[in-house]
Amino acid sequence: MQSKLPNTTLSIFALMSKMATQHNALNLSQGFPDFNTDPALIDLVTKAMHDGYNQYAPLAGDLRLRENISAMISHLHGTTYDPQNEITITAGASEALYASITAFINPGDEVIILKPAYDTYEPTIRLQGGIPVLIQLQAPYTSIDWDEVRSKISSKTRMLIINNPHNPSGNVFSHEDLSKLEELLAGTNILLLSDEVYEHIIFDDRKHLSVAAYDKLAQQSIITASFGKTFHTTGWKVGYCLAPDNLMREIYKVHQNVIFCVSHPLQKALATYLEEPKRYLGLSKFYEQKRDLFLRGIEGSRFTYKPAMGTYFQMLDYSAISQENARLYAEGLIKENGIASIPVSVFNCDEQDHKFLRFCFAKSDETLEKAAAILRSI
Amino acid sequence: MQSKLPNTTLSIFALMSKMATQHNALNLSQGFPDFNTDPALIDLVTKAMHDGYNQYAPLAGDLRLRENISAMISHLHGTTYDPQNEITITAGASEALYASITAFINPGDEVIILKPAYDTYEPTIRLQGGIPVLIQLQAPYTSIDWDEVRSKISSKTRMLIINNPHNPSGNVFSHEDLSKLEELLAGTNILLLSDEVYEHIIFDDRKHLSVAAYDKLAQQSIITASFGKTFHTTGWKVGYCLAPDNLMREIYKVHQNVIFCVSHPLQKALATYLEEPKRYLGLSKFYEQKRDLFLRGIEGSRFTYKPAMGTYFQMLDYSAISQENARLYAEGLIKENGIASIPVSVFNCDEQDHKFLRFCFAKSDETLEKAAAILRSI
Ligand SMILES: CSCCC(=O)C(=O)O
Ligand SMILES: CSCCC(=O)C(=O)O
Repeated sequence: MQSKLPNTTLSIFALMSKMATQHNALNLSQGFPDFNTDPALIDLVTKAMHDGYNQYAPLAGDLRLRENISAMISHLHGTTYDPQNEITITAGASEALYASITAFINPGDEVIILKPAYDTYEPTIRLQGGIPVLIQLQAPYTSIDWDEVRSKISSKTRMLIINNPHNPSGNVFSHEDLSKLEELLAGTNILLLSDEVYEHIIFDDRKHLSVAAYDKLAQQSIITASFGKTFHTTGWKVGYCLAPDNLMREIYKVHQNVIFCVSHPLQKALATYLEEPKRYLGLSKFYEQKRDLFLRGIEGSRFTYKPAMGTYFQMLDYSAISQENARLYAEGLIKENGIASIPVSVFNCDEQDHKFLRFCFAKSDETLEKAAAILRSI
Repeated sequence: MQSKLPNTTLSIFALMSKMATQHNALNLSQGFPDFNTDPALIDLVTKAMHDGYNQYAPLAGDLRLRENISAMISHLHGTTYDPQNEITITAGASEALYASITAFINPGDEVIILKPAYDTYEPTIRLQGGIPVLIQLQAPYTSIDWDEVRSKISSKTRMLIINNPHNPSGNVFSHEDLSKLEELLAGTNILLLSDEVYEHIIFDDRKHLSVAAYDKLAQQSIITASFGKTFHTTGWKVGYCLAPDNLMREIYKVHQNVIFCVSHPLQKALATYLEEPKRYLGLSKFYEQKRDLFLRGIEGSRFTYKPAMGTYFQMLDYSAISQENARLYAEGLIKENGIASIPVSVFNCDEQDHKFLRFCFAKSDETLEKAAAILRSI
């Protein structure tokens, strides 16, 4: 039997988490918090279930949740997405990305991806018969050569995918980046898919510049995000997708056939919870302290780094310690040092290896201190 | 912009539910209960959330849930699916169907569908570039001409989809049906996709004959199901998929990219809840009483019917009352009589119209009595 995805193997995130468990290692690999979500949010889910919200939600998602997302985006970025036609609640950002690519990519269409990139983009494009066009960024992946991007655009280019804030590098896009991108795509029929799942995690008094804030660009863009990263509920799988009406109509058709709707009680709870902006406005400071704790902890170690500008990931350069390839080096750290990370090479073109590991700092202060102590000792 | 799904419009289920709400009609259209799920199951979700199961579940699903599904299938059908490699927890049966079709259908592949059929099969096949080959069953859709099915098989046939118990007719497959099907597919590389989402709802002392029980057939089959119908939680979107290891491997790759994993706390709760077989073994009797209450209630009406053998749907033939097409007739019933149903024509080839409406009897006895009174008065 021929596989439609011959190169897809078990997700690196599942794999490293599994190894971490097997070797009883501190798990800073897969991106999820090791602390629990707010009991107030849990209580809201319990209430929703007792109130009977256990049957199908509306296809596009609970209306109040969509309204509250619309209010949040409008408050933060000054743009209004119509809750009725321009917002869909999805099973995490994963399904939002999947449905967005599936809705628009036909066999032979090219999709430009900036590497390092999240691992679902490429296989999802291939499942549609599309062709991923890969651009490898130079380590440490904090600047984008927009002329190179321009040079990769062809008559077949149908979509460009960005991730801002960027996993795994922690880079965030500048106003200049977004302006160049807007200029680049102006007048073309190329869609921009902007994966903004870390939208509320951004450091050192920077501001998240959403594509939503760039009026012209937003007209040809789809934005995907998730409550998993924002409310410490990565396992609830509730995310969302924003796009102009004419694009959303097509995404919606895929969503209808892939899943129909998203868990109703979880949506109801999130709708209420989202009503207080303080619940996401404090997130950057919360994670900035964790980043700083982690970075202070590894002072004096042989790892080098640029502090992450956003996300809850910190890349560390181990080239002063070892020349082993990142995958083997990461496996060694799990087995021999009891700490799990993600080898950044797996995000790169042909796993180009720039000797980086990615550590997730969405962990208790205690875990971060333990992790830092291990890294200092290496 | 060209649509990949030009013929997909808003789901008939969403549409009729919406009209029901607008006109304040009794809603017997979309298939979901109007009573709440067991508070004991709700408590298990609450416990799972407080216990911290709010982060990513394993890709294939919570292991104990898979083990308990395996035990259930083995107990009911005498076949063992390996929880490690042959069971995946999906976002409802919807995602199970979607991933199963997507994993195996390539451009040009033919997929045989028996109409009336559930509305996601065809667009999902088309999204893969596959070709739906439709076989229209004769009303009231309770017998299948396997010779006709045989005549539709070509060298391009890659899959055949059945739904047993069958929505909307309430038909269930006999041993003869499944034996003929087994014979038909033996030695071919045609996959069977068996949508068994109403597996626990079957009446008059019949037994659900799962494809799982047909050893040879099961080797080339994928079975999809859901806890939504079984535990009155259609809005939780937790289902599952069974298939031999070599098939599951491919489904799993699609699942990984579509959604990664399913809501963790809901899975944890269902794992525990599923441990007591009485929780699904009583379901047939529970719904048989509801079917009977509904059918007694419409005695003396001008609607005619064959009692449903399974599912929580009853088709009624209105040809003695009106010759209007089913969609218009159903809309009229909502607006003028205050009762919503599903026009069965939408499940048929080119909406062939055999003057049937489908009523969902997963409703409180009070709702069913009110509904019957309306139907008697027509
Ligand atoms: C869906 S598992 C991957 C989690 C994640 O986003 C990451 O670790 O990068
Ligand atoms: C996913 S909405 C449709 C529910 C259902 O299975 C039906 O009504 O047939």
